[in-house]
Amino acid sequence: MTSFQHNHEHIDENMFKIEVNLDDMSGELIGHLMEELLAKGANDVYYTPIYMKKNRPGILLSVLVSVDAVEKIKEVLFRETTTFGLRYTPFIVHRLGRDFIEVGTQWGIVRVKQAIYKGTIIQQSPEYEDCRLIAQREEIPLKQVYEEVYKQLMKTNHKDASK
Amino acid sequence: MTSFQHNHEHIDENMFKIEVNLDDMSGELIGHLMEELLAKGANDVYYTPIYMKKNRPGILLSVLVSVDAVEKIKEVLFRETTTFGLRYTPFIVHRLGRDFIEVGTQWGIVRVKQAIYKGTIIQQSPEYEDCRLIAQREEIPLKQVYEEVYKQLMKTNHKDASK
Amino acid sequence: MTSFQHNHEHIDENMFKIEVNLDDMSGELIGHLMEELLAKGANDVYYTPIYMKKNRPGILLSVLVSVDAVEKIKEVLFRETTTFGLRYTPFIVHRLGRDFIEVGTQWGIVRVKQAIYKGTIIQQSPEYEDCRLIAQREEIPLKQVYEEVYKQLMKTNHKDASK
Amino acid sequence: MTSFQHNHEHIDENMFKIEVNLDDMSGELIGHLMEELLAKGANDVYYTPIYMKKNRPGILLSVLVSVDAVEKIKEVLFRETTTFGLRYTPFIVHRLGRDFIEVGTQWGIVRVKQAIYKGTIIQQSPEYEDCRLIAQREEIPLKQVYEEVYKQLMKTNHKDASK
Amino acid sequence: MTSFQHNHEHIDENMFKIEVNLDDMSGELIGHLMEELLAKGANDVYYTPIYMKKNRPGILLSVLVSVDAVEKIKEVLFRETTTFGLRYTPFIVHRLGRDFIEVGTQWGIVRVKQAIYKGTIIQQSPEYEDCRLIAQREEIPLKQVYEEVYKQLMKTNHKDASK
Amino acid sequence: MTSFQHNHEHIDENMFKIEVNLDDMSGELIGHLMEELLAKGANDVYYTPIYMKKNRPGILLSVLVSVDAVEKIKEVLFRETTTFGLRYTPFIVHRLGRDFIEVGTQWGIVRVKQAIYKGTIIQQSPEYEDCRLIAQREEIPLKQVYEEVYKQLMKTNHKDASK
Repeated sequence: MTSFQHNHEHIDENMFKIEVNLDDMSGELIGHLMEELLAKGANDVYYTPIYMKKNRPGILLSVLVSVDAVEKIKEVLFRETTTFGLRYTPFIVHRLGRDFIEVGTQWGIVRVKQAIYKGTIIQQSPEYEDCRLIAQREEIPLKQVYEEVYKQLMKTNHKDASK
Repeated sequence: MTSFQHNHEHIDENMFKIEVNLDDMSGELIGHLMEELLAKGANDVYYTPIYMKKNRPGILLSVLVSVDAVEKIKEVLFRETTTFGLRYTPFIVHRLGRDFIEVGTQWGIVRVKQAIYKGTIIQQSPEYEDCRLIAQREEIPLKQVYEEVYKQLMKTNHKDASK
Repeated sequence: MTSFQHNHEHIDENMFKIEVNLDDMSGELIGHLMEELLAKGANDVYYTPIYMKKNRPGILLSVLVSVDAVEKIKEVLFRETTTFGLRYTPFIVHRLGRDFIEVGTQWGIVRVKQAIYKGTIIQQSPEYEDCRLIAQREEIPLKQVYEEVYKQLMKTNHKDASK
Repeated sequence: MTSFQHNHEHIDENMFKIEVNLDDMSGELIGHLMEELLAKGANDVYYTPIYMKKNRPGILLSVLVSVDAVEKIKEVLFRETTTFGLRYTPFIVHRLGRDFIEVGTQWGIVRVKQAIYKGTIIQQSPEYEDCRLIAQREEIPLKQVYEEVYKQLMKTNHKDASK
Repeated sequence: MTSFQHNHEHIDENMFKIEVNLDDMSGELIGHLMEELLAKGANDVYYTPIYMKKNRPGILLSVLVSVDAVEKIKEVLFRETTTFGLRYTPFIVHRLGRDFIEVGTQWGIVRVKQAIYKGTIIQQSPEYEDCRLIAQREEIPLKQVYEEVYKQLMKTNHKDASK
Repeated sequence: MTSFQHNHEHIDENMFKIEVNLDDMSGELIGHLMEELLAKGANDVYYTPIYMKKNRPGILLSVLVSVDAVEKIKEVLFRETTTFGLRYTPFIVHRLGRDFIEVGTQWGIVRVKQAIYKGTIIQQSPEYEDCRLIAQREEIPLKQVYEEVYKQLMKTNHKDASK
C-alpha cells in the first residue's frame, strides 16, 4: 500500500449552496444537468422531490459550490434550466483529512480513500469506479468486490495492531 | 342531523390500477393531468416520486379506475402525457358503508361522511370543501372549523350514548 | 406581439426562507395551507417529504418570503398549522429580467413570460393559466396548446433571425 | 388540570442546521443514527430522500442543534456515519411559549402541551407517549385515545368560555 | 458457530399486498401504526410519500401479508386509520433458504442470518438488534460492531476455503 | 426523413413486475444495480424512496420484465443485492405503435421516436442520446438541441398539413 495524496482536516468558510425549484422542465433534461454541473466545477449536486403549487411534482435542485465558481454555475443554471431566478446562501464545511491507499486484490489494485479525524483514520472507502471496473471486467457482483477489499483492509489493520 | 345518502359495505372486484412512468414531461403538465383524470372518471389519482435511469427524477402516475372506465382513462393518458405505453393490473377493493350526516356550527352546516364497518360507525370525516368555504368566508383557520365540527359531533355522540 | 411589463435583472438580498417540520397535521390541512400562504404574500411555498423520529412520515414546509412579509407569514403559520416553533434564515436571490409578450394562436392570445440574462432572452415560458383555459374550453390536450404556442414563437424568432 | 412547566415565547439566534449527504451507508445504520443524535443533544433530526450522482438514491441527514452542542454532534456524525465532511449554517428560531396541562380520561391522565402565541393558547397537543401507553395497555386504537383527550379539552374550554 | 434454524428456499403463492392512501391522518398516528401492524401479523409494512389531489402530501401505506392474516390486518387498518376503503392484490414471493449462525466477537455473540440460493450461501446479515445492543452497552459506533462481525465472518470463511 | 423501424400497437400480457425492499444496502451499490438490470434484460427499472420499520429510509426496487427474463433477473437480484426474498406479480401492457424518423438540424441528424395510437401519431420524442451527443460536442445547452428538433418537426408537420 502506498499513500499518494494528502489533505489536512480543515474548516472551509467559502462555500455556497445554490437552489432552484423546477416545475416546467422534464426529468430527462434534469438528469443531463447533473453531469454538466459537476463538469463545470460544482462540488456536489443533488435533487429533492418537492410538492409545488397546483398539484405539481417539482424538483429542488441543490448545488454545493465554492465562492470562486458561483458565477460559472449560475450561468450553467440559467442556460440549461427553465428557471427565472435562483437563490443562494453561504455555509461552513468541516472536511476531514483525506488520504488514499492502494489495496491489492486477486483482480488487481483498488484505491481506498481514508478520512482522518483528529489524527485518526475514521473512514475507509473503496473507490467506486475502481470496484465497478473490476466487477464489469470479471463479471462478478459489485458487492463481492467491496467485500474482498474490506477483507484485505482488515488483514492489514490486524497486522498494524499486532506491532 | 339528517342522513341523505347510503352505500353498503362491499367488496368490489372490478377495479384496475393503471401506471405510467414519466420522465420527459414537466411538473406543470403533470399537475394539470390530475384534474383531467378525475374529471374523466378516475376514482383516484396519485403521483409517486421515483428514480429513473440516467439520473432522471421521474414520476410514477397511478390511476385507480373501475373496469368500465379503463378505455376512457387510457385515451386521456395517451393524449395528455408523453408516454409510449401504460400498464395495468386488477385489484380488489373493500369499501366501508358510507353515510352522510349534517352538523350545525355557528358558521353554518357542514356535511360529515361516516364509514360503517360491520354495522358500526368507525370514521367520521368532515367534508373538506364545506369546511374550506367556511374558513375562507369567515377568515378563520381551517383547523378551527374542523375542531368545531368535531366538538359538535362529540356532543351528539354523548347524547346518543346516554339514551 | 406587445410587451406590457418589464423588470430588470437584479440581486435581491432581502429574502428569507422559513421552515416548519410537521408530523401532527393531516395532508388535507397542509394542502389548504399552500393557497393561504401564497394569498398572504409568500413568494413561493413548497413541501418536502421527510423521515421524522418514531417512524413518522413528516412534511418539511418551506416558504420563500421577502423581509417585509416575514411577520405576516409567521402569523399564518402559527394560526394554521400545529407547530410550536418555526425557523428562518436569509438568502440571496438572483432574478433574471422579465418581460411579457403576447402570442396569437388559432384559439386566442396566450401570454409568454420571457427571462432576460445579461440582455439576452434566455427563457420563454407560456403562461400556464392562459394555456389551461384554452385546453379546457377547446377540450384539447394541454400539451397541444403549449406546442402551438412554441410553434408560433419559433415562427416569430425565425423572422427576427432573418433581418 | 395542573400546569407544571412554563417557557416564554422567544427568538433564539443560537441554532445551527448541520447537513450530511449519505450514499454509502445502509438504511439500517441510518435508522439507528436518529436515536443516537437525539440522545446526544440534537434538538431535532430528520432525513430527506435525495437523488445523487450515478443513479444513487441518497439520504440528506439534517440535524437542528444549539451552538453549544455543535461539536458534540459533529463527533457523533463523524464516528457513526461514513461521511468525509459535513456542512452547517446558522438560523433563527421563533419558539412559542409552552405550557403543560393534565387532562383526565377514563383510562388515566394524559399531558397536553400548549403553545402560547402573543399570550393566547394557539395549539393543544396531547403527549404522544402518554396516549400510546394507554392505547397499548387498553388495546384500543390510538386515534380513539386522542379523540377522548380532545373531547375532554373541549368540555373544559366550554366551561372557561361560560365564565 | 452453531446453526439453530433452517428454512428451505421456496415459492409462496399465498401472499397479498394491501394498500391504503392516507391524506387525513397525522404522521404521528401513522408512525404508531407500523408497530401495530407488525405486531398483528403483517410480514412487512412500508410507507411511500405520494402526491394526492388538492395539493395534499399523502402517504401510501403498503402491507405485505399472508392470506390467513388478511382479515385481521384489514380490521387493524379500519380501526386505526381514517380510511373509507382499502385495496389488495395477490403476489408471488420467492424466499431464499434461511439459516442462522452465531459469531463470537470481543463483546459477545452476534447472530448472523444467512440466505441460501440454489444450495449456496449468498447473503450474510448480522442481526441488527444484537449489534445495536452491543453498540449501546459498549458505547461504540454501530458500524464498528458490524465491521467486527464481518471480520470474524471472513476469518471463518477463509478457514472453510482452505479445507 | 426516413422511417427505419416499425412496431404495431399491441397489448402484452406476458409482463411481470418484480419488487424488492432494501434497507441494508448502500446507495452506491443500488446505483450500480440499475445498469446491471437493464443490461441483463429488464425492460425498465426504477427506485422509490420508502419508510421502513425502525426509522429506516429504504428503497423499493421495481423491475419490469417479460416472462422469459424473470429467472435471469431474479438471479441478478439475488447475487447483487442483500435481499432474502423478492416478490412479483403479472400485469398487462398497452404499447403504442412505434416508428423512428430522422430529422436534420444544423448540427447533424437526430432520430425522433413516434408513438402511434389508433393509427395517428400522438407523441414525437427526440432521442435523448442523439441530442446529448450534439450538446456535448457543440457545447450548447441540451434544451437548445431539443428546441431545434421540435422546430424542424413543426416545419415538416406544417408541410404535411398543407397537402
